[in-house]
Amino acid sequence: APAAGPQDLLIAVKAESDAAAGEALARVDALLQVRRTGGEQDFRPRSLASALKMLPEARWVLISVPGRHAAGVAEEALDHGRNVFLYSDNVPIESEVALKRKARERGLLVLGPDCGTAVIGGMRFGFANRVRRGPVGLIGASGTGLQAVMSHLHTLGSGISQAIGTGGRDLAAEVGGITALQALDLLRRDPETEVIVLISKPPAREVAARLLGLARSAGKPVVVYFLGAPLPGRRIGNLRFAASLSEAAELAIQIPAVPGVPGVPVSGHLRGLFSGGTLAQEVLLGLSAVLPPESYQILDLGDDEYTVGRLHPMIDQDLRLRLLRQEAADPQISLILLDVVLGEGSHADPAGELAPAIEEARSRRPELEVAALVIGTDEDPQDLRHQIETLERAGARVFRTAGELVDFATQRLPESEESGKPVPLEPVRGAINVGLESFYDSLVAQGTPAVQVEWKPPAGGNETLAAILARMKSA
Amino acid sequence: APAAGPQDLLIAVKAESDAAAGEALARVDALLQVRRTGGEQDFRPRSLASALKMLPEARWVLISVPGRHAAGVAEEALDHGRNVFLYSDNVPIESEVALKRKARERGLLVLGPDCGTAVIGGMRFGFANRVRRGPVGLIGASGTGLQAVMSHLHTLGSGISQAIGTGGRDLAAEVGGITALQALDLLRRDPETEVIVLISKPPAREVAARLLGLARSAGKPVVVYFLGAPLPGRRIGNLRFAASLSEAAELAIQIPAVPGVPGVPVSGHLRGLFSGGTLAQEVLLGLSAVLPPESYQILDLGDDEYTVGRLHPMIDQDLRLRLLRQEAADPQISLILLDVVLGEGSHADPAGELAPAIEEARSRRPELEVAALVIGTDEDPQDLRHQIETLERAGARVFRTAGELVDFATQRLPESEESGKPVPLEPVRGAINVGLESFYDSLVAQGTPAVQVEWKPPAGGNETLAAILARMKSA
Repeated sequence: APAAGPQDLLIAVKAESDAAAGEALARVDALLQVRRTGGEQDFRPRSLASALKMLPEARWVLISVPGRHAAGVAEEALDHGRNVFLYSDNVPIESEVALKRKARERGLLVLGPDCGTAVIGGMRFGFANRVRRGPVGLIGASGTGLQAVMSHLHTLGSGISQAIGTGGRDLAAEVGGITALQALDLLRRDPETEVIVLISKPPAREVAARLLGLARSAGKPVVVYFLGAPLPGRRIGNLRFAASLSEAAELAIQIPAVPGVPGVPVSGHLRGLFSGGTLAQEVLLGLSAVLPPESYQILDLGDDEYTVGRLHPMIDQDLRLRLLRQEAADPQISLILLDVVLGEGSHADPAGELAPAIEEARSRRPELEVAALVIGTDEDPQDLRHQIETLERAGARVFRTAGELVDFATQRLPESEESGKPVPLEPVRGAINVGLESFYDSLVAQGTPAVQVEWKPPAGGNETLAAILARMKSA
Repeated sequence: APAAGPQDLLIAVKAESDAAAGEALARVDALLQVRRTGGEQDFRPRSLASALKMLPEARWVLISVPGRHAAGVAEEALDHGRNVFLYSDNVPIESEVALKRKARERGLLVLGPDCGTAVIGGMRFGFANRVRRGPVGLIGASGTGLQAVMSHLHTLGSGISQAIGTGGRDLAAEVGGITALQALDLLRRDPETEVIVLISKPPAREVAARLLGLARSAGKPVVVYFLGAPLPGRRIGNLRFAASLSEAAELAIQIPAVPGVPGVPVSGHLRGLFSGGTLAQEVLLGLSAVLPPESYQILDLGDDEYTVGRLHPMIDQDLRLRLLRQEAADPQISLILLDVVLGEGSHADPAGELAPAIEEARSRRPELEVAALVIGTDEDPQDLRHQIETLERAGARVFRTAGELVDFATQRLPESEESGKPVPLEPVRGAINVGLESFYDSLVAQGTPAVQVEWKPPAGGNETLAAILARMKSA
């Protein structure tokens, strides 16, 4: 048995007979049992360490102490190998980063700080609605957002497998989405989860791309709702983009649990040489949602900087042809995107001009791919069918909407990065609560074995003394 | 007959007999007829004024001369009471504003500057695809965007009534969406247009709200796609929000041509007192899309600034109740929005606390409306049905999704503003082209009576001399 610490309860039994001693010990065991199964807890440990000795199977620690003390308690929980539900706010972002990095190394989760809601293995932490279990796994950087989605899913007759809150800052650049990435990895391995829903305020751009890049290869449909961010389309591979919390829930139950074509890791970069500004922007919006920023570049050749002293590229393709040859010769480039806009006023045969350049490039570098977005109708003067056939004969893939082009271009994913030690899938057998009583009451009401820590600020709130104690402890 | 000017062609016939004179005049008429019906134009006027004398029924002037000369030609066209399709770019924004204000006063349109595409009464100006006529009216601040939507509509078997390009800066704050507002007004009056599609880069916030406020009362479904802007939901009244160009086309033909509940002008302001941050944001996103900024305010009472030394408003509603009484007493406020989030951890009876305050407020000011968004499930400890009934009995309208709440709140529109003289609905009987030959060729190919102006920069491009001439002309 581990050595007893100063916070431990030592029970010494001095009995008149072995039978009496056995009876007394049985009574002690029964009392401890009551604590573990969630009856009224009459003994309250004053430290996390002793709480964990009382309920060693507790894999989760709920923390809602004032912000300046929260990181310390959370770190202690991680050091004990426990996951953390961190309701406290006003935790410095540096502490959040340090905690989450430590958690990632150890295959643990830190939900929060400022995480209001989580449902793990059917157990509700913090604010959470009572919803039936079901096939939808939620990840949310927003508490009431998660609640709105889980409630709506329930109302629609479905249910959730897990709801993993990450805290509102998790997708900021500093934190880099550590928890959301772990949660995504967890849910893609979770056999109970058939569809994943990911909701958040707009993430930092590079974090969003990393997260959706991973989601793109989850092997399950992922519904994404970034409140207040532009949608990169309605669908990219297995990703569906929602425009509201309620729509996120609706999409999750409408779409069949069959993922789109999985992403394939491809090295090399992507170049777009566009004549239509809006088309360039729409494609860029889609690519930037899932690809790392350094892997693509889209040029709008109709932009002022390219048209000084030159006709519009929808009329005159000379510059585009020159750039096409140049990019095609660059061994770094593995995919070139083009648009071809037909109709009144446009070049009389754009495909006829592009085809020889495409053919030549592909004969020199057969691994190079070319994809073209063709905008036009069967009544346009350039002959739509002929234009498409000319491009296809030259070896280009032809698409008719920006969404389809983006879908194709983003099947080529960057190699996925190391995401730390995987978080094990395990049932919730108990939890320790440090802070708000109501969270403890809620655990007990749900039948979760739980222990409430009688927490006091270190050194009675005296910060100087607390610092000295912390130094002594770590020495 | 008007007096002949120095640019006019005078034809004097000196004949040996009346019959010969009559024959000669008939021949002149026939030649003029050829010009008007689009055969090769063998005489080219050197000024807009004389071109308009040759083809007085031309209501449109297409201008694609270099940017620094374009505003002058456009102003001349407006002064002659003609609409302008202004392809030229590099026109200063002050000139754009001045031209568009003048046009609005006179019930004329200025499409552009930098407008690549328009289809007016079946006639294609600039770059445009050949698509069948149909029930969809397009407004676009983007050329290839319009082309992509019209082509996709055609591919899907539908067609367009009009496609009105506005130029890329029309929805900037400086220009204020003058052309887009006129176009919207035109299309809502156009009997051929059953559904309106509005596409643009993200407009200035106040312009977007003004535009969508007008669209909200168009009496026809309006599909909106602001490329790169967040969607305020999928639907607000008769507005549908698309996430791509192709989806804009798809929505336009999928939705029945039946508008939602029309907006009703209501005076007074709107206040939201929210406990859930994400819910507050989602509602705010919806409201800000269609309401003028000064008409609403949404408070997130769970935000740090309100929770210092106070429990979260999902647990403790004291502050909210105080604010509710305060706002309800303000005669400026005509609608109050609330959210009620049920579930584990939340207040045991939030509706029970809110109801007396709502009832009291409405008994004092019966015109005051209160609407609540209730998030929760039938398994939540607060009893969902009872919560809803309590709120409804107190006189509140209850909604279950943010979208429905926004839909309700935005049926109350501000009084619509004066939008200038309406642009008349009239067929295109001819056009004058000043600039790119290919635009003239395209008009001729379409069978539109057209005249090409043999345009030269004023004073042969000598700017000083041109300025002197302009002063003499206006003197």
